[in-house]
Amino acid sequence: MKARDLAAPYPTVRIDTPMVEAARLLAGQDLPGLIVVNRQGEPFTVLPGTQVLRMAIPRYCQEDPTLARVIDEAAADLFLRHLGDRTVVECLPERPKALPVVDPNATVLEIAAVMAATATPLVAVLDDRGGLIGAITLDALLDRMFAA
Amino acid sequence: MKARDLAAPYPTVRIDTPMVEAARLLAGQDLPGLIVVNRQGEPFTVLPGTQVLRMAIPRYCQEDPTLARVIDEAAADLFLRHLGDRTVVECLPERPKALPVVDPNATVLEIAAVMAATATPLVAVLDDRGGLIGAITLDALLDRMFAA
Repeated sequence: MKARDLAAPYPTVRIDTPMVEAARLLAGQDLPGLIVVNRQGEPFTVLPGTQVLRMAIPRYCQEDPTLARVIDEAAADLFLRHLGDRTVVECLPERPKALPVVDPNATVLEIAAVMAATATPLVAVLDDRGGLIGAITLDALLDRMFAA
Repeated sequence: MKARDLAAPYPTVRIDTPMVEAARLLAGQDLPGLIVVNRQGEPFTVLPGTQVLRMAIPRYCQEDPTLARVIDEAAADLFLRHLGDRTVVECLPERPKALPVVDPNATVLEIAAVMAATATPLVAVLDDRGGLIGAITLDALLDRMFAA
């Protein structure tokens, strides 16, 4: 069992995708994070779900979550207004997290080691030209490992 | 919409649960992480899924994932052997991550702020005596926020 057998199609967003659209994609598909690709379709970074929340919430709410309680506004409205018309690249942290990647021949153990070392429940499988073959989630990996 | 309305039953493991059993629970139910409770059933810490992998994989594999490729052993076998008969508490890091918690009156925005600030896609909802009412996952929160 190699990465090429485990890789499944995975939705991507482009660096110029509106962040609101990216957030809706994350919400609608119960994904552990979003794979961000550049304008050439090459994998660029990964956005964990909690990072998307971090972008959508004003900083003062994160510094003191109890402040959030007194805000008299529906959460979804506040999120959408705070994200405005910014694109994914405009919302990324200064040093985006490197997307964990493996090649098609990576073993289950190797994939698990990459997830563990990067603390990311999602790895991309790239072909030898750097194109995205698909992705493997932690859930899919564990299912495979403990299915036997 | 308050935390009490969003809280759903969530499986827990005890600090003296065998780690192998905890890993199987995580694998079988596609959970974003495990809530660990003490012997009195009080929430103690949260174990993100990637942290469970970290415990199950020998350190040399994490430091150099390509080493993992040359190991001639099925991943599941290596995991089970490496975990041995250790309990959850024996596998925890020296300073376990605090379990993000909210009270039953927390608003959606407050819950989101806690997840964003702690980078944890799971928060526990506690009653005023510290008992676990349930938990809210990032998926559940996003579904609720963008359902309207």
